[in-house]
Amino acid sequence: MKILVINAGSSSIKYQLIDMTDETLLAKGQCDRIGIEGGNFKHVNIAKDYTHKVDVQMANHGEGIKLIIDALTNAEYGVISSMSEINAVGHRVVHGGEKFSGSVIINDEIIEALKECSELSPLHNPANLTGIKACTEIMGENVPQVGVFDTGFHQTMPDFAYLYAIPYEYYEKYKLRRYGFHGTSHRYVTARAAEMLGKKPEEINIVTCHLGNGSSITAVKGGKSFDTTMGVTPLDGLMMGTRSGSIDPAIIPFLMEKEGLTAKEVDNILNKKSGILGVSQTTSDNRDIEEGARNGNERYKLIESMLCHQITKYVGGYAAAMGGVDAIVFTGGIGENNPQYRSRVGKNLEFMGVKVDEEANKKAFRTSDENDISAEGATVKMLVIPTNEELMIARDTYELVK
Amino acid sequence: MKILVINAGSSSIKYQLIDMTDETLLAKGQCDRIGIEGGNFKHVNIAKDYTHKVDVQMANHGEGIKLIIDALTNAEYGVISSMSEINAVGHRVVHGGEKFSGSVIINDEIIEALKECSELSPLHNPANLTGIKACTEIMGENVPQVGVFDTGFHQTMPDFAYLYAIPYEYYEKYKLRRYGFHGTSHRYVTARAAEMLGKKPEEINIVTCHLGNGSSITAVKGGKSFDTTMGVTPLDGLMMGTRSGSIDPAIIPFLMEKEGLTAKEVDNILNKKSGILGVSQTTSDNRDIEEGARNGNERYKLIESMLCHQITKYVGGYAAAMGGVDAIVFTGGIGENNPQYRSRVGKNLEFMGVKVDEEANKKAFRTSDENDISAEGATVKMLVIPTNEELMIARDTYELVK
Repeated sequence: MKILVINAGSSSIKYQLIDMTDETLLAKGQCDRIGIEGGNFKHVNIAKDYTHKVDVQMANHGEGIKLIIDALTNAEYGVISSMSEINAVGHRVVHGGEKFSGSVIINDEIIEALKECSELSPLHNPANLTGIKACTEIMGENVPQVGVFDTGFHQTMPDFAYLYAIPYEYYEKYKLRRYGFHGTSHRYVTARAAEMLGKKPEEINIVTCHLGNGSSITAVKGGKSFDTTMGVTPLDGLMMGTRSGSIDPAIIPFLMEKEGLTAKEVDNILNKKSGILGVSQTTSDNRDIEEGARNGNERYKLIESMLCHQITKYVGGYAAAMGGVDAIVFTGGIGENNPQYRSRVGKNLEFMGVKVDEEANKKAFRTSDENDISAEGATVKMLVIPTNEELMIARDTYELVK
Repeated sequence: MKILVINAGSSSIKYQLIDMTDETLLAKGQCDRIGIEGGNFKHVNIAKDYTHKVDVQMANHGEGIKLIIDALTNAEYGVISSMSEINAVGHRVVHGGEKFSGSVIINDEIIEALKECSELSPLHNPANLTGIKACTEIMGENVPQVGVFDTGFHQTMPDFAYLYAIPYEYYEKYKLRRYGFHGTSHRYVTARAAEMLGKKPEEINIVTCHLGNGSSITAVKGGKSFDTTMGVTPLDGLMMGTRSGSIDPAIIPFLMEKEGLTAKEVDNILNKKSGILGVSQTTSDNRDIEEGARNGNERYKLIESMLCHQITKYVGGYAAAMGGVDAIVFTGGIGENNPQYRSRVGKNLEFMGVKVDEEANKKAFRTSDENDISAEGATVKMLVIPTNEELMIARDTYELVK
């Protein structure tokens, strides 16, 4: 069975085609700037290690999906002979609200429910829905489509972890509560960590750190999400590439008054112009920060310290909330590729049994391997696990449609 | 030397008169509803255990200070024979911004600097200034007055702990950063904890939990504030009696739009109608929550779990940020008087060496004694230390004017 995994944003579509007989990645690629000037498309045939790139205007997501199907079936760089070889489509859907704790086969009823969740995720869910609609148009009603939710894994959080201490009526009226995101990634690395620890997921308490352009940390108790840093929206928690993370809420009315901004404008600043970008005022990319800090840039060193301090606090806090842990997992672009942060966080956690093997840590740099970087005698393991959200989406899709 | 300690709010003045020869509390009391209908005044002569209460209108803070002086010098229930026995006045001042890391003798220059800090604390600082002005009017220019800042103790925080990941220009322009409050309390219990541990303050790493109607938790590293939960304002961090504490910042624009509220109105809801009051919808007082929860109220039990979960996360996070701790200190109305929370938090922290002696914990209930409630074999102590901010203010005042 071959499954097309789709991650549709407001002006982009990322995709992968995976053969589920042996979970082989056949092709991947991306449509960018859909409906905007300067559109472009990229497709990679994995087996041939061949990349096809083209500048192309796409008026809408439908045209993007068409390009993807054309590339997948292209005689030169395609990987299947016809669209009919695609047995199912798995979609990343950002917000499932309280309605969806697991993945679902998409039908009209589900689409209505997703529209309701759009209120909590006005940027992402409508884009995800556009992707679903485009697939139906191009591929027809008979190819089953599955929705896999970023929030799904976190629906096991207990009420005392997911409720904010705001008037309870807002939870009842608007379902304002902590949802958490990156659930597919936290779920994937949890399963892998259990495997590496030689235990069942329900036997392990771990903290999973998904650190990338967006970052979240999750307390996983008995294999289930127990608490997580992101909230109603992905703005809460850790500082990120361009997001502030958690701040004193009083900062919003303060900035509105002093800078003469609307609430939406401040929200935009906190989402798009804060985090690493806000403090550095030059870049949102942690790789630039690493390089600059190595060359002595003091502001960049400060950002590294802020990140390590915040990661340490969340990991320690979640370890305490679960009464201790078996392992700390690092994943995501930064989590997988920054030995320095792992080392610094690890040193601070030695009091609870973490001990990083610095050689192993350095070796676990820009590799796609899973690595246990714990030193001899560590009672809490530190693991580096490359995440694979697309594979997780394909697996869920496979399970539901097989 | 006798020192009058003044804590002036917008419509109230709390006071204590302390004899610094042996730090004896001579009298204490409170003016309430200054400038509002239904004003009243209460004065307690400690030695005689005599309380004088009266309904009285006070047009302004000056009239309140006059009442206080009259009561202190009253033939029947007073404690001094004339105002001239008051050698100095120590004022609680809420916000010292980045200007004040220690206490200061108040002069015109200081008053100007305090006015500048009012931008960050528009509710509290102007009230504190009114208290200072009233004392000058009634007691004259020759009685020295000292300002002791809630933020002062926290000025040792490193930049990576106090900076929010918002555009750096807002820190430069408005000094928007984490300041922290309850500093006088955290400083007091830190000194006491060092004493109880038989060490110098600079030798200890501890977490101090000030839990009351307002709550904050501080990481104290080498006797100095290293991080704290409150922020630019006291709204950040833990859920409190009526304050939400930290929330997803995106909740503010969401509520403004859905409920048709201004930013100030949402800010007011987060400060006055959230926290315990918001979730319970009936009371902001944790004593009511305790009683109701014992009688089976599910919402109240939820609030207890929320509080314990949040306290545990902050304590664990700060322990990690400091690479482990020597002790956890509980203080404040809830911290001193709620054995259940100490027990629940302590259980979760056993993995890091905390061990609560449940008998000792129960005995440390509604007592003014300092208690080490750790069990045999605990490597991290749990201490209950009644706070005494007024004594700390009197000590600072004494040191500066003696």
